[in-house]
Amino acid sequence: MNKIYKWGIIGPGKIARKFAEALDLTDNVRLEAVASRDLSKAKQFAEAFGSAKAYGNYEALINDPEIDVIYIATPHAFHNEQALLCLQKKKAVLCEKPMALNAQQVKQMLQASKENNIFLMEALWTRFLPWLQSVIKIIKDGQIGAVKFVRADFGFKAEYNPAGRLFDTRLGGGSLLDIGIYPLFLCQQILGNPTLVTAAGNLDCGGADMSCHAILQYHNGAAGIISSALDYQTQQTAEITGTEGMIRIHSPWHRTSEFEWRKEGEDWQKVILPPLINGFQFQIAEVIHCLDKGQIESPLLPQAFTLQLSETMDEIRRQIGVKYSGESEEE
Amino acid sequence: MNKIYKWGIIGPGKIARKFAEALDLTDNVRLEAVASRDLSKAKQFAEAFGSAKAYGNYEALINDPEIDVIYIATPHAFHNEQALLCLQKKKAVLCEKPMALNAQQVKQMLQASKENNIFLMEALWTRFLPWLQSVIKIIKDGQIGAVKFVRADFGFKAEYNPAGRLFDTRLGGGSLLDIGIYPLFLCQQILGNPTLVTAAGNLDCGGADMSCHAILQYHNGAAGIISSALDYQTQQTAEITGTEGMIRIHSPWHRTSEFEWRKEGEDWQKVILPPLINGFQFQIAEVIHCLDKGQIESPLLPQAFTLQLSETMDEIRRQIGVKYSGESEEE
Repeated sequence: MNKIYKWGIIGPGKIARKFAEALDLTDNVRLEAVASRDLSKAKQFAEAFGSAKAYGNYEALINDPEIDVIYIATPHAFHNEQALLCLQKKKAVLCEKPMALNAQQVKQMLQASKENNIFLMEALWTRFLPWLQSVIKIIKDGQIGAVKFVRADFGFKAEYNPAGRLFDTRLGGGSLLDIGIYPLFLCQQILGNPTLVTAAGNLDCGGADMSCHAILQYHNGAAGIISSALDYQTQQTAEITGTEGMIRIHSPWHRTSEFEWRKEGEDWQKVILPPLINGFQFQIAEVIHCLDKGQIESPLLPQAFTLQLSETMDEIRRQIGVKYSGESEEE
Repeated sequence: MNKIYKWGIIGPGKIARKFAEALDLTDNVRLEAVASRDLSKAKQFAEAFGSAKAYGNYEALINDPEIDVIYIATPHAFHNEQALLCLQKKKAVLCEKPMALNAQQVKQMLQASKENNIFLMEALWTRFLPWLQSVIKIIKDGQIGAVKFVRADFGFKAEYNPAGRLFDTRLGGGSLLDIGIYPLFLCQQILGNPTLVTAAGNLDCGGADMSCHAILQYHNGAAGIISSALDYQTQQTAEITGTEGMIRIHSPWHRTSEFEWRKEGEDWQKVILPPLINGFQFQIAEVIHCLDKGQIESPLLPQAFTLQLSETMDEIRRQIGVKYSGESEEE
């Protein structure tokens, strides 16, 4: 009989709700408890998802001996502290993207995972979606030759609220960390860690990047071009161009179930996958697969990859001048 | 009765052939003569286009009193010298894009146009195509709000030949001047002259840019993202995003006859224009329209705009390290 993994959720907001729905769609998992600094919010969430327990503080949930693995769904700025608490208590962690505010924090978290020999993964759910597995296979099979160019954008028009988590630099606000991470992820997934990054951005009066653009360059002459924005919607498409063909990924590319590709000189082939429904269930399956095998990281989304993403985001932020509270000039 | 404008062509290559075909499609124009340093090449071209005269040197054509207007279709590196000769002899000039190798040369040419009171225009034919007129109208009518983002790419896989005009820096080789100028043109046409340019490129061993990427930033927070490449094909699409809607321009965007647009919250509207056939006839019509009115520049493609394009290309080349023969370190 398979082990049933009991999940705790920290931060019962909108994204946690989607996650809890995905747990419902997944075998061998159960939502055990949810914690918020606001107990009534936790209770409301727990009620919506059956028999889950509700805690009014995170420590209580982390100390609950029933819980195997914790999903951290709070604003970016709290990931580091909360993940460290979890890992020290030997709770496996799936941490919402971005893993933390900067590479320094990510390193701390990876260190804690290693020292406590406990699983830690960034919740970059796109990594586990069927369209990306198909695209990776097409590339690995050499169908489009050597990849030379990856382009992706993710912009949407958010309601402007300087105190909201999307805009407040005390909470890690700005487009890059919240949605720019998706196109950046795609470039680094396909092309690897860049050798040179060139970025430009537009900051609001609070210092958060309303939009952000970057060129990633590689020793082999390949390039990645990414854009993110909170003040306008972009097409949300992606393209991957190789020496012998190309792939175009339909909007919204990061969670698409359709893409097209062609070898040079041949017709376009359309790939249509089953509709996503929720989409988070694929990353949940990966977590329990890793836990079953006793791994402390996913081979599909290794911790070193998360660190590299974070380092690139640090460099982009350095170039465009975005700082979060507590980051010194030297960092 | 309308005046018949007698055209001369300098540099009877592939692009000149397309141009001569466009003259055939246009009223009130006639191909009068063609000149090449290779007389047999000029003769062959002249024969292909009826009763045109053939000259074995450019000066003879420029001195032909029958000729009203000269189309310069030689490699980029020769535009400056040849256009100056034409303008000094009071011949109106349509000069293939880019106008010249750098802004310094462009300034000389604009000065010569002014001093001799004679027409000069860059042959940026995309400016006069029906799709762009429609797109400009949609934007001017406020249908997509304030434009925040323009993205366009133009990459194709050219056969590599270090001595060919596309790759030889003595001829102004590289992707930027030859095809990167199209996405750059679109950004500057829609958003104006950028306040800040950030570029990255990949050079071949001869120092020509095989690919080139740039981020254009504007004071109002708008941005343009452009890519060009000679070593891989891109989607050749463009998008224009405003605060209240967006436009997507089908491949190959620079000479498309189809695009889609939508206002936020409304359905996509597809605009299908008649097939282009040749496309050069629209810029020819503009030239004769300006000549009829005695203008020395086109109000739709003013000389100041050509100079700004050239200045942006200089800045991009400075950042990516592309130099042409004769350009000193100080330039």
